[in-house]
Amino acid sequence: MQFSVKMRSAKGGPHEKGGRHISGAERILDENDVEKGVVAMLRRARNHQRGKADFISIKIEEIKEDEVIFKPLIAVHSCIAKNVAQGHAIAKEKLQSVGVSALAIERGFSALLALKDSIRGAMLFDAFTGERLDNFGNRGVRVTKMDCAGAAEYEEKLAKVGLTGEHVREALVLASKVASAPGMVAELCWADDPDYVTGYVASAVGGYIRIPIMKEMGSGVGGRIFFVKHDCDIKVLSEYLQEQLVLITFGGNVDVEVGTNFRKKTAIN
Amino acid sequence: MQFSVKMRSAKGGPHEKGGRHISGAERILDENDVEKGVVAMLRRARNHQRGKADFISIKIEEIKEDEVIFKPLIAVHSCIAKNVAQGHAIAKEKLQSVGVSALAIERGFSALLALKDSIRGAMLFDAFTGERLDNFGNRGVRVTKMDCAGAAEYEEKLAKVGLTGEHVREALVLASKVASAPGMVAELCWADDPDYVTGYVASAVGGYIRIPIMKEMGSGVGGRIFFVKHDCDIKVLSEYLQEQLVLITFGGNVDVEVGTNFRKKTAIN
Repeated sequence: MQFSVKMRSAKGGPHEKGGRHISGAERILDENDVEKGVVAMLRRARNHQRGKADFISIKIEEIKEDEVIFKPLIAVHSCIAKNVAQGHAIAKEKLQSVGVSALAIERGFSALLALKDSIRGAMLFDAFTGERLDNFGNRGVRVTKMDCAGAAEYEEKLAKVGLTGEHVREALVLASKVASAPGMVAELCWADDPDYVTGYVASAVGGYIRIPIMKEMGSGVGGRIFFVKHDCDIKVLSEYLQEQLVLITFGGNVDVEVGTNFRKKTAIN
Repeated sequence: MQFSVKMRSAKGGPHEKGGRHISGAERILDENDVEKGVVAMLRRARNHQRGKADFISIKIEEIKEDEVIFKPLIAVHSCIAKNVAQGHAIAKEKLQSVGVSALAIERGFSALLALKDSIRGAMLFDAFTGERLDNFGNRGVRVTKMDCAGAAEYEEKLAKVGLTGEHVREALVLASKVASAPGMVAELCWADDPDYVTGYVASAVGGYIRIPIMKEMGSGVGGRIFFVKHDCDIKVLSEYLQEQLVLITFGGNVDVEVGTNFRKKTAIN
């Protein structure tokens, strides 16, 4: 039996009473993993870099079997980039190799680089014309309701190839759900954490390609773009991303690409 | 640092979407006891005799130091009663010995025995005239926002005298907060659980007297009466019972009365 476990935390009281948001998390867990998951969320809320939450809300809800679908973890690759220019060049090459047009890539990068503030969700771009397709503004399209299937086994397997920690799990699970979405071509992302310059390009065909530097250290602006097919049904896609419960299964497909620009790299933080 | 931890659980979805209430709990815990307390609440919600909750909400909120006051645990006594008549006779004698008039006692018992359905809160009765003073109808006056101070130490000490389990802790903590309320004379209570026929009389002067049988086995109707002073300020009293955070300190005063009607009895379930 599976459960949805959601956490939100704030400082200065509950969100609805003006508290400042500290952290949020959502997991889909086997019955036996719920307690452990809840404890991990409590610790996360109390030890967050944004501050120590003084309000934490946790909601646990049973999931009906027919509400869940399973999708595979996409293959994981890592590469080397020494500076932002190299990182962006790799990302562009990878996006183009999985079917995003040069025009759409340029428009996508311009949109991300023009952001004054981080965008929590993703912007949707036509992978052919490079037009922005969503009307979610600075909110973007959120991706929720996903997790790994069988958390304990999943983490053990990932740990064997040197991938540990909640951020890795969350990034890979999110990218895998996104890659499985109807009409999706590829995803481009870098984080808003000023100390974390890593980003990635992900797609069903090309897998998850971690790029170690995609922005200058100290920049607190991050964002995410989904490049979608020209005839993509935005409503169907958004519903899938926001409403469909997806559990990501681990097929052991964590590969490591090695070549001129690539070397074996095990730590994805 | 202290935290308020509240849990509510339901079956058939959240309460607000029509789910049936399964269980609720509220604790005030030291920071170090929060995780353990949350896990205990999860287990309680999932293993309740009313059913297995499929929705659980937990809210954790930091408490400011000046919001809390400390009150002592009242002395705990146990007695023997072989049937309902004996139980009621002991209860009446005990209520009278701490200042409730014979008239008020009769009116209180009549009110409890006339209940068609359980009352979640308490009815307020004038300890002198026996008039009902509150206008809360079938809801009654709830008592919330209390716990033992230093849960671990408290439970260890109670366990040494054979008092274990959540129900004991909750009953003693509630009775101790009630006994400390401004204008309170005594409390009379029996539970609504059909399998649980035990009840008690409690007061600041007389302590907590557990009476093993106060209703017939199988009766699912329970209730609680607070007998208060004739000049009691109901508003002040209700606010104390419902809003004042009270932590109950353990002074080791778990006595056992032994006499004609009493014997040492250690299990209070």
